[in-house]
Amino acid sequence: MQTKTNCIVRKEQYDPKELNLHETLFCNANGYIGVRGTLEEGVPADFPTMRGQYLAGAYEIIPMKQAESLCNLVEKKQTMLNICDTQTIRLSVSGEDFLPAEGGTEEAERILNMSEGYTERRTRWISPSGREIDVRIRRMAHFRVKELFTIDYEVTALNFSGEAVFDSFHIPEVENYSDPNDPRLADESPCFLKLEKQGFREEASFSVTRTKESGVSIAAVTNHRCFSEAKPYSMVREEGEALITRLRIPVRKGERIRVIKYAAFSDSIREKDPLAKAVKVVHDAMERDIDELYEDQKSYLGSFYSRSHMEIKGDKELEDAVSFNMYELLQAAPHDAFAGIAAKGLSGEGYEGHYFWDTEMYVVPFFLMTEPKLAENILSFRYATLQRARENAALLGHRRGALYPWRTITGVECSGYFPSGTAAYHINGAIAYAVTQYYYATSDKDFLIKMGLEILIETARLWLDTGVYDRKGRFQIQEVTGPDEYTCMVNNNYYTNASARYNLSSAAKLYEEFRDEPEIQRLAERLGFSEDEKEEMREAAEKMYLPYDEEYGINPQDDSFLDKPVWDLKATPKEDFPLLLHYHPLHLYRFQVCKQADTVLSHFLFPKLQSRETMEKSFRYYERITTHDSSLSTCVFSMTASMLGLKKEALLYFGDSAKLDLMNRHENTKDGVHTANMGGCYMAIVNGFAGIRITEHGLSIDPFLPEGLTGYSFPFTFRGRRLKLTVEKDTAALKLLSGEAFDFRFREENGRLEEEGLWTHRL
Amino acid sequence: MQTKTNCIVRKEQYDPKELNLHETLFCNANGYIGVRGTLEEGVPADFPTMRGQYLAGAYEIIPMKQAESLCNLVEKKQTMLNICDTQTIRLSVSGEDFLPAEGGTEEAERILNMSEGYTERRTRWISPSGREIDVRIRRMAHFRVKELFTIDYEVTALNFSGEAVFDSFHIPEVENYSDPNDPRLADESPCFLKLEKQGFREEASFSVTRTKESGVSIAAVTNHRCFSEAKPYSMVREEGEALITRLRIPVRKGERIRVIKYAAFSDSIREKDPLAKAVKVVHDAMERDIDELYEDQKSYLGSFYSRSHMEIKGDKELEDAVSFNMYELLQAAPHDAFAGIAAKGLSGEGYEGHYFWDTEMYVVPFFLMTEPKLAENILSFRYATLQRARENAALLGHRRGALYPWRTITGVECSGYFPSGTAAYHINGAIAYAVTQYYYATSDKDFLIKMGLEILIETARLWLDTGVYDRKGRFQIQEVTGPDEYTCMVNNNYYTNASARYNLSSAAKLYEEFRDEPEIQRLAERLGFSEDEKEEMREAAEKMYLPYDEEYGINPQDDSFLDKPVWDLKATPKEDFPLLLHYHPLHLYRFQVCKQADTVLSHFLFPKLQSRETMEKSFRYYERITTHDSSLSTCVFSMTASMLGLKKEALLYFGDSAKLDLMNRHENTKDGVHTANMGGCYMAIVNGFAGIRITEHGLSIDPFLPEGLTGYSFPFTFRGRRLKLTVEKDTAALKLLSGEAFDFRFREENGRLEEEGLWTHRL
Repeated sequence: MQTKTNCIVRKEQYDPKELNLHETLFCNANGYIGVRGTLEEGVPADFPTMRGQYLAGAYEIIPMKQAESLCNLVEKKQTMLNICDTQTIRLSVSGEDFLPAEGGTEEAERILNMSEGYTERRTRWISPSGREIDVRIRRMAHFRVKELFTIDYEVTALNFSGEAVFDSFHIPEVENYSDPNDPRLADESPCFLKLEKQGFREEASFSVTRTKESGVSIAAVTNHRCFSEAKPYSMVREEGEALITRLRIPVRKGERIRVIKYAAFSDSIREKDPLAKAVKVVHDAMERDIDELYEDQKSYLGSFYSRSHMEIKGDKELEDAVSFNMYELLQAAPHDAFAGIAAKGLSGEGYEGHYFWDTEMYVVPFFLMTEPKLAENILSFRYATLQRARENAALLGHRRGALYPWRTITGVECSGYFPSGTAAYHINGAIAYAVTQYYYATSDKDFLIKMGLEILIETARLWLDTGVYDRKGRFQIQEVTGPDEYTCMVNNNYYTNASARYNLSSAAKLYEEFRDEPEIQRLAERLGFSEDEKEEMREAAEKMYLPYDEEYGINPQDDSFLDKPVWDLKATPKEDFPLLLHYHPLHLYRFQVCKQADTVLSHFLFPKLQSRETMEKSFRYYERITTHDSSLSTCVFSMTASMLGLKKEALLYFGDSAKLDLMNRHENTKDGVHTANMGGCYMAIVNGFAGIRITEHGLSIDPFLPEGLTGYSFPFTFRGRRLKLTVEKDTAALKLLSGEAFDFRFREENGRLEEEGLWTHRL
Repeated sequence: MQTKTNCIVRKEQYDPKELNLHETLFCNANGYIGVRGTLEEGVPADFPTMRGQYLAGAYEIIPMKQAESLCNLVEKKQTMLNICDTQTIRLSVSGEDFLPAEGGTEEAERILNMSEGYTERRTRWISPSGREIDVRIRRMAHFRVKELFTIDYEVTALNFSGEAVFDSFHIPEVENYSDPNDPRLADESPCFLKLEKQGFREEASFSVTRTKESGVSIAAVTNHRCFSEAKPYSMVREEGEALITRLRIPVRKGERIRVIKYAAFSDSIREKDPLAKAVKVVHDAMERDIDELYEDQKSYLGSFYSRSHMEIKGDKELEDAVSFNMYELLQAAPHDAFAGIAAKGLSGEGYEGHYFWDTEMYVVPFFLMTEPKLAENILSFRYATLQRARENAALLGHRRGALYPWRTITGVECSGYFPSGTAAYHINGAIAYAVTQYYYATSDKDFLIKMGLEILIETARLWLDTGVYDRKGRFQIQEVTGPDEYTCMVNNNYYTNASARYNLSSAAKLYEEFRDEPEIQRLAERLGFSEDEKEEMREAAEKMYLPYDEEYGINPQDDSFLDKPVWDLKATPKEDFPLLLHYHPLHLYRFQVCKQADTVLSHFLFPKLQSRETMEKSFRYYERITTHDSSLSTCVFSMTASMLGLKKEALLYFGDSAKLDLMNRHENTKDGVHTANMGGCYMAIVNGFAGIRITEHGLSIDPFLPEGLTGYSFPFTFRGRRLKLTVEKDTAALKLLSGEAFDFRFREENGRLEEEGLWTHRL
């Protein structure tokens, strides 16, 4: 592992424009806790900041009144919680408060160390009166001790002797973030938490808060350990609702003193006694040497990288961006079935922490190839909320099946505007696709029998209940919204129909494969699922209508899409993008203009449904009318371009996608990272450049080396095997690192790898 | 005139279930003031009541937050105001409060006297201690003195001598009505009024209130006149916010005492000094003998009936219902351009007092044939709000034209859910149709030049900006909602396209007719309207796509309507109607099921566009899938059935429509009358049974006598003439009561009437 190089380093100028971007980039998360990279001492009042600390799956329920109350519309929504602030530590040296915006800073930088799993902040600060200190703060959200977050604060007095005073805060009741200028961020900013108890037990601060509506309890505990020559003087106090630990430490010129703050969090969703759990986590952590915790973190990541590290030769910046993306995905991935992956992971409050279809379609493929257990967690969350999806379907008038919510935390629909929310039935297709892919990539029969097949059947049933045979005997699906939200509630959205087809046929096929298993027989009985219904699924899949336009030779996005006028993108002022913020939806709906890949994505996912010519013509057609206002778009254009052999386009779109957050390309990374795009970026390499596909027939590979790169290489897992693909200018090499021999396809050829074997091919 | 028979009489049992229905049926309104028929003394706290008093066009602006804020969605709405309560008069006799729910009542009835223009309440009440009084209360909203409302309260002491005490209230600040169980009634019930001043000037109470957001001031003044043998003792006081006039009157056994309460209202929309206006109205009214005011009212109505009275022979109940409907329409009709006609007229707060397309499509035809000046008022209101319609179009992204709001009081859109609100672009078609009809029915060139043509051009422009030529050269209109709201945002709604076609062609044709007028030349210049644009309109009309299904031989409601499954109405439980209250909109959108007439209405309006066979097949088709959940539906089915010669159906649907409110058929007349249906009921007779059509070519008639009736007869106006049509079993007779000779069509024949001539025809 490249211990030293796998870092993101940025200058910190304490500039208000950059600080909240850094809060996202230097966020620490471990799939359970997420703490934004805020400054310990806080920022001046006029600086924008989203001072956030989150727990996966912790939520509040808030009213969402509809302007016009129609039957069964959603009138409440869930929102993620900003939980108690334990980030705040105010330092003063000999009476001067450490405030980098006052005085001067030198050599200030922020580091995300992705090999060792911490962020670091270094600042040399000259106080207004001339005292110089060197500050180094490391923060870690521990991957193995999920409830633990540490701040490791070191101060060196460079040119004076005196006293350092740390006021370390634990503030149980905090507010969620709001930005009235952006509808994608909630515009309510109340405190959702009610304090149940707080105080100190010996030197440890503790608090328990409880959400007002959802009744989720959150416990937090902090404690400190000091390292200094002189004995520190410690005192605790409560000020209003804040619990403050004051550490007063004499310091001599040249001396480095160190304070480690241990914070632990737990919640009533997972634990019966969250406070006891948090107390224990802090206690156990303090029993261990801090270096042991750091080592443990590093070893976890070492293991992760051994299954995932992506080498890109010839473009260091790109490699860094890809590494960053993969690290962020790991930070976002839940470690149990109590949460999904939010649109912004655990790095910010954008989209209120809701989980969308992106998780299954863009993020699951990454974990499938690297950490299948994490993919299973995500799908287990969907299984855990299947009953709610059934209830959601019933609210929409369906007599059978389950419809997963478009946006949710608990599995209950939270869309305020159903035409571009609930009506996006294709989320069912995405979940069914991920379940099927998971099975083909892992051969995890147990999951399929216990959870997967039930998901497949219930989602497929929904299509049967939604669609209808037209007079020509074609199976049509009406009044749904595809991935492109610039057209809503359309008939026969190509993407939706294609993914419904896959869902239906996968349910039928995998049921047939397992129908003799006693567990599946019991499942069928419980669901009232018969051979007839299975046949109904098979037939609907077969007769699924997939619109095709003879004149243009492309697949229209939906039945009436091509009758609309083409939006004049060239004449649209730059400041009018994203269009959804500048045009009434009804206006957008009347044009051929796409927010994101839609038909283009379905061609990537289901390439057998159309000829290469149709797909290429379609690609060219949609390319001209897509704004990529959504961050889910360019990665898909890249992978589809790869598939079609459009190498130039594949690289171009990939670059856009890979650097989106690290380079803040959409200028909104401050609200949190774009997890879906990060997953899409991985897919653009692995499924795009490398052309890896996993189907019921196994693994196939069809790689190319994009211009400008000298090679790329990555390990991956496939059905229990560990493999590594290396693509260079003239050769592709596939090595079986561990696991049994197997057959695969390489382009049009059959290949076979024996145990620990190497297979190479000239390109 | 049938002075004595033109009355609606109902028993009053002081039953909570009936009281609020009576509040609507015995409402007094004159197009400016509307006062619901509440009980003067109030009702017990647990009785439902909508104690309302309204002024046409007076409104408040309230927030209407969208669950998801999309670009340019409406986030505020207007609502009608419940203005100050001057209805309350509490009577006590010798210390016992007149409360009909306590003690006993005999011979209690409510009367709506439609010949004399007042409501009357008669009750013989026996107090708990056995005192008997006879109470007769007449209320009048004066048709000639628009600001005046009177309560004429007579009490006879039947078996005792003692004292009558009247506490007459004037309560400036009142709340709007709310019903949390019905989304069609606002669920906020705050007081929108802020008191600016109140008090007494001599014996007159006065108040000025002002709305908080919209800044509309409303002034009210009351005063009293007493008639009794002994001198009354009068005293005024303020109690909280109520202004109370106490009249203490000694009464002898057998004596009848009488108190007349005069109330006047004025508003800052119409008057510079509303208080001065109200003071003057009360003063002037009190100067006159009350009988003179009653006579004046009667004479106004006499004149109205001479131009409108509908005789229906052979079905008295039906005749009463039709008379009631016509009277209610007169009560609702605004007398200036500061208001439109609300869905519930001035009889209740349903639909928040908003004006919809119904006014032009269902109500204007009635006034066109009876009181064209009132029709002109309605269209002048639309002209007065044309600029707001342009602004509305711009909010929706249109570069030219005007789009009238789906629901409004001031001309600003108030739809909370745009897919079945703002997207109903056909409101433009309705207004353009009414303007054109107005011109053909009145030859009022002046109106057309000053207002009508500008409306026609601006509405027609919107269609040019909305529609698009498809690859076959047909003009398509996409993403709009037709009258049937059970299908939303569809492509090529037949009704919308047909009415857009009429709008476009009417704008082009009437522009051609008047383009040489200097005023029209200036108009064209001001609007930047050219011959080219006129040609564009003519061509779009000509190329308008009107969907037709070869297989079924009908016009589909929209492009994809027939691909949907047919809703199983037979299997739908009765309590599931209206469907919109029991099914998610997305579910409704996926079926062939209609809330109301849609294509069937367009066939009535534009019969030349299709063959009789297509229209009849369509009628039969839509008949089977229409729920008539909207009150705008059965009247249209009746008139279209008449046109198609389906006499049985015409009568059946007509009966449903005619008695809707008087018989409370939809069980929601308590919220107010259904003005659109009332107009539609008139059309069902005049345009349906009698087959009267007015086009650019003049008048045509094609009558029949529905089974069960022995005849019908009504006067009407046409281009300044007064006519009367009488249809009996074997003959139809048209008499020219006044005006110049003219030619007309009777079925396939040409007819001509000389001055005061009579033309008869065997049927």
